[in-house]
Amino acid sequence: MNVNAPAAAKPGETKTVRPELATGIWPPAATPFRADLTIDFDRYFTHCKKLLAEGAHGLAVLGTTSEALSLDLGERELVLERLIKAGVPASQLLPGTGAASIGDAVRLTRHAVSQGVRGVLLLPPFYYKGVSDAGLYAFVAEVIRRVNDKRLALYLYNFPQMTAIQWSPDLVGLLMQDFPGTVVGLKDSSGDVDYMNTLLDSYPGFAVFPSSESLLLDAMRRGAAGCISATANTHVGNIRNLYDNWEDSVNAENMHHACSAVRAAVAPFGWIPAVKAILAAREGTPDWSRTRPPLEALDTTRKAQLLSAVAAAGG
Amino acid sequence: MNVNAPAAAKPGETKTVRPELATGIWPPAATPFRADLTIDFDRYFTHCKKLLAEGAHGLAVLGTTSEALSLDLGERELVLERLIKAGVPASQLLPGTGAASIGDAVRLTRHAVSQGVRGVLLLPPFYYKGVSDAGLYAFVAEVIRRVNDKRLALYLYNFPQMTAIQWSPDLVGLLMQDFPGTVVGLKDSSGDVDYMNTLLDSYPGFAVFPSSESLLLDAMRRGAAGCISATANTHVGNIRNLYDNWEDSVNAENMHHACSAVRAAVAPFGWIPAVKAILAAREGTPDWSRTRPPLEALDTTRKAQLLSAVAAAGG
Repeated sequence: MNVNAPAAAKPGETKTVRPELATGIWPPAATPFRADLTIDFDRYFTHCKKLLAEGAHGLAVLGTTSEALSLDLGERELVLERLIKAGVPASQLLPGTGAASIGDAVRLTRHAVSQGVRGVLLLPPFYYKGVSDAGLYAFVAEVIRRVNDKRLALYLYNFPQMTAIQWSPDLVGLLMQDFPGTVVGLKDSSGDVDYMNTLLDSYPGFAVFPSSESLLLDAMRRGAAGCISATANTHVGNIRNLYDNWEDSVNAENMHHACSAVRAAVAPFGWIPAVKAILAAREGTPDWSRTRPPLEALDTTRKAQLLSAVAAAGG
Repeated sequence: MNVNAPAAAKPGETKTVRPELATGIWPPAATPFRADLTIDFDRYFTHCKKLLAEGAHGLAVLGTTSEALSLDLGERELVLERLIKAGVPASQLLPGTGAASIGDAVRLTRHAVSQGVRGVLLLPPFYYKGVSDAGLYAFVAEVIRRVNDKRLALYLYNFPQMTAIQWSPDLVGLLMQDFPGTVVGLKDSSGDVDYMNTLLDSYPGFAVFPSSESLLLDAMRRGAAGCISATANTHVGNIRNLYDNWEDSVNAENMHHACSAVRAAVAPFGWIPAVKAILAAREGTPDWSRTRPPLEALDTTRKAQLLSAVAAAGG
């Protein structure tokens, strides 16, 4: 591989002060907006604390489900600062810090690390397409080099449906090897079970999170770290139960089917508007339904269909 | 169409102080980088001025070819400011100001307009996929509403190969209708001639720019505004000649074939690394070849192949 990248950190230099590996259920908390499209921070803090109270090990804030890519850079920093100030421990936060440019990704990553977060989820640079593994390697290496902080724990964020780019298993292995203790995991939103299993089988100890509770049981049996699922916004307790009991030969399958039924009920409606519609119904406020453009809230008919499908699934 | 968007500007309110419509050849100037990946401003200014001296009507700076999406937000503002300070008239600049979020797009657009640019090229929000026309409409409407400046001349930037999103002809028509004098044109990098012709035939007076000099002659005959082509970085004089003489029944076809031959020679090599490799050879410095990750420079073999193909094409 032809890699025009700066050298990795020197051996020994990166072995200390790293946060413990994240494991368990880390919902990608949805972000509520007011009528003027500003962030409704109070509603957001309440939601985040509720998720933790209901069993989340931590929160994968500022990812796709959070509409973080529809927030401006300053807002992405502000959300993190204010959430910590509101009482959510930084050690329970895995914010998304991806950006199309190295400079913006470094800014967000450095800021998150300085806040003491457990780790960051890094998208590949998502504007240019048809890029090579060597180009992606150089991007990640440069972000790590510039952030230059031993506390950085980096989880690759794989979501080819949005980015048209996949972190190939070979590239993942190379990054783990060259940045040990820094490149420590991956969230896989591809839904491609073969891809996920390849990572789980090839890299024991690497923290792989499927993005669906439907995949959690099989993934745990194969050594996954946990789950980061959009629908954890709406039934985190069920998913936590499954996570805690995946080795229970009597009950795990039933818990799996219960989780999967809810997930399947939501699937046809588009994750982000659907999750927000469920929260709106549950909290008794239409405000939760609001999305930022280019995303759209579900219309009344779809919302009613969603809610009855979820109810039928016991969610 | 269900459009949750703010109302358009009031009739009459937006009719004045608008910059004249951009027409002609507007190369998307490539951005040179130093070994540490910072922008080589001096080399950049020289290149921009040379393009203008060789016949460009203006410069579509900070677009895809410029690797603008690999610059951070602050750099995108700085490039524009410094270029104007270096003596390139703002009226000859059409910068790209697109971003995934409304907030960042507003920041860049407001800044560009405040600098007095001729107009801006706006990408659709390019992270979320599968978004509707109504969602895209709401995005553009909100950007226009927040920028709130009568000088704003907005050219939609269509590049589905990078964004997986297309400005549909219906949406283009609706935006023109609701924001007259503000949504004034479109750069089409899709290479989809049917799409481009639909816009040209449906919306006379709307400034459509194909992204290839190979399409320029046919497009001019159909009412195009000009051309914004990556390869204009390397042979803008030829393209300007074709533009000036497209109605010349004796010579236009030959000029078209000369332009198309160069374009075809470069095509297999990837536009951005190829354009930079040609500039590197011509200026006698390997520095021009450098790209920012995730893009990669051509290797020596490919570079030699490119240069001989371009020479054979007379470019």
